[in-house]
Amino acid sequence: MTQRNPNLAKLHATYLFAEIARRKQQFLQENPDARLISLGIGDTTSPIPQHIVEGFHHAATCLGDEATYTGYEEAFGRFELRKRIANKLYHSMVEAEEVYISDGSKCDIARLQLLFGTDASVAVQDPSYPAYVGSSVIAGKTGSFNPDTEQYEKIVYMACTKENGFFPDLSTTPRADIIYFCSPNNPTGETPTRQQLEELVAFTKKNRSILIFDTAYSTFIQDSDSVHSIYEIEGAREVAIETSSFSKMIGFTGVRLGWTVVPKELRYDDGTAVADDWKRILSTCFNGASNIAQIGGIAALDPEGIEASRHLINAYMENAKVLREAVELKGYTCYGGVHAPYIWVDLNGKKSWDAFDEFLYDAHIVSTPGAGFGPSGEGFLRLSAFGKKEDIQEAAKRIKTVLQEKVSS
Amino acid sequence: MTQRNPNLAKLHATYLFAEIARRKQQFLQENPDARLISLGIGDTTSPIPQHIVEGFHHAATCLGDEATYTGYEEAFGRFELRKRIANKLYHSMVEAEEVYISDGSKCDIARLQLLFGTDASVAVQDPSYPAYVGSSVIAGKTGSFNPDTEQYEKIVYMACTKENGFFPDLSTTPRADIIYFCSPNNPTGETPTRQQLEELVAFTKKNRSILIFDTAYSTFIQDSDSVHSIYEIEGAREVAIETSSFSKMIGFTGVRLGWTVVPKELRYDDGTAVADDWKRILSTCFNGASNIAQIGGIAALDPEGIEASRHLINAYMENAKVLREAVELKGYTCYGGVHAPYIWVDLNGKKSWDAFDEFLYDAHIVSTPGAGFGPSGEGFLRLSAFGKKEDIQEAAKRIKTVLQEKVSS
Repeated sequence: MTQRNPNLAKLHATYLFAEIARRKQQFLQENPDARLISLGIGDTTSPIPQHIVEGFHHAATCLGDEATYTGYEEAFGRFELRKRIANKLYHSMVEAEEVYISDGSKCDIARLQLLFGTDASVAVQDPSYPAYVGSSVIAGKTGSFNPDTEQYEKIVYMACTKENGFFPDLSTTPRADIIYFCSPNNPTGETPTRQQLEELVAFTKKNRSILIFDTAYSTFIQDSDSVHSIYEIEGAREVAIETSSFSKMIGFTGVRLGWTVVPKELRYDDGTAVADDWKRILSTCFNGASNIAQIGGIAALDPEGIEASRHLINAYMENAKVLREAVELKGYTCYGGVHAPYIWVDLNGKKSWDAFDEFLYDAHIVSTPGAGFGPSGEGFLRLSAFGKKEDIQEAAKRIKTVLQEKVSS
Repeated sequence: MTQRNPNLAKLHATYLFAEIARRKQQFLQENPDARLISLGIGDTTSPIPQHIVEGFHHAATCLGDEATYTGYEEAFGRFELRKRIANKLYHSMVEAEEVYISDGSKCDIARLQLLFGTDASVAVQDPSYPAYVGSSVIAGKTGSFNPDTEQYEKIVYMACTKENGFFPDLSTTPRADIIYFCSPNNPTGETPTRQQLEELVAFTKKNRSILIFDTAYSTFIQDSDSVHSIYEIEGAREVAIETSSFSKMIGFTGVRLGWTVVPKELRYDDGTAVADDWKRILSTCFNGASNIAQIGGIAALDPEGIEASRHLINAYMENAKVLREAVELKGYTCYGGVHAPYIWVDLNGKKSWDAFDEFLYDAHIVSTPGAGFGPSGEGFLRLSAFGKKEDIQEAAKRIKTVLQEKVSS
């Protein structure tokens, strides 16, 4: 008589990355000798810089020594790490006590759902990183999936298209309690301007909504004018939570380390501090990020670590440039790839799953179809710039030669 | 207009370990020179064995090397680790594919809530580890906290008292959709017999409930007759999920590594496989345990690691014996401490928070008041056997001398 969570039944039958894996498997069965190059899932490929690896070694050695062994970490993360994030990454725009260490942004995105009831309404950029929608569905904040619109009921999809410069038209956007926003954006790779983010904060404030701002790719921003954190925008501390991650910054995808900032000023409608509930949720549902990862994170935020991170990111951004050039040489327009490791290829009207199959079968390249990120992603293909330099160069060659006639039309 | 999750407001104002920390802080302010010994929170104190530390070092080195670097871990955990858990800890009673690696049991307990809707009813042992109740409240599966009964409405509290040998009377226990059960139990330290667990599985089956069986302390069981896993009981694969952890087994409290077993046979009332939903939840709300922790876990499950774990556990169980003897010498009855690192002291009618304060102020020992684990915990004090040998011996001395007159009455 024990029933399934009815919200799980609402989940769209084909989960994006599972469907990609299925098609890839099928291709490999038919073509066992093909040398596939993955420009699909955004997974880091460069080794972690030695300075940070030394941090891991130090942490491991301490754990093996009677005098330096530690058990459970400090609540909400090692204070030295919280302090460095506040000082080095936020230039003291936030306090160390407002930084809560996690095992990664995706996990925090799911936990953040618990701050709000099932009645809360959700807005997402369309296209967007699938975890915002997926965790909202599981948490019971949505209606059913409508196969005609490719949308879940009760979710506000804020279309981000080439026509609006990938920033939603807020003048026609309905109010939602929670607004998920990712900048630089995954999957489009586009970064909103300061003025656009001022509009977003004003919109959130006017609607008395709460903004959940995801900056997992902010260290990829190449100029100092662009906004790295929502707290650079006046008034953001009263309306925004920011979640971010070491994953892409320094190759920690498998190491698992991230954080979420909940400013002291942020309150619910009844005046309760959101941070108090966040602490309660973390205490009940979480037990901290791995101490070894945290000590690595501390090393990543000293001058040597920050310098190493810059090198790592520059190499990925070189990849992005190579891919962009290959795509543009074929006459295609693409977006992103300048302040983010994703290139968003405009397919000139072709369906994104068709283009995915062509890339797979004709160029032996795994990509991600734009439609997987939401209905406004149809007609686009996401190429990830994570990869070894030689693989990216080979991929660029394949894009330039094999796909010439196929994709253009 | 963005509202707080109304379930968060139901949470009892004083969170157990936060209240303990508050009283400890106050004591230290009044007695800045006191040398406190903690027998409170169950936190490991012995260093991690060298063999496992070498696993961490190896993992770190691999992450720093171009040829061996890896990004995201395999979905649901590194297969070698899942295989070792299935073979070494479950003696192939479960398959590797049924083992899902996590960053610890507490985190999985919160995620397991997502398998069931807010309508699902919950039963817990009383007393019990606070995360079962806390995560149920946040997930909206309970009513309000009733200060008179010290219980949340809609939760079935299965009283585990000295009168019933710390095993609930199932003949009078109302049906619930989900039954949380911890064995060896935290906080009582008691382990049910095989026959009792057969009753529990039969009760779960008869009621078509789902049992969530927590074996975080099973490696502390000292005889081979006692049940280490619920899957030793016939029929358990159709009704039970098991969650467990490396935390106490091998000092991984800060390293963060655990697992949950979801057998293929386990189904909801509508016939859907629970494992399918579990995979979906993990894919959407989680991104795997740290790769460094997982490689350490693999080392912990080769013969050398298992042997080291046994040594570690024996040392803690020596501590438990020392504490038990000190308590019993004063004429008190205590439970647990034989197959688990917790001693459950019967306070002869004294209130548990009063005894907590006496231990703190008269013996400079931090303990955990039984009432914090549920209403049936009133009148008991939990002493944790985690600690350095010399601290435990000193604590035993203090218990024997300072508390003689105070606690007995």
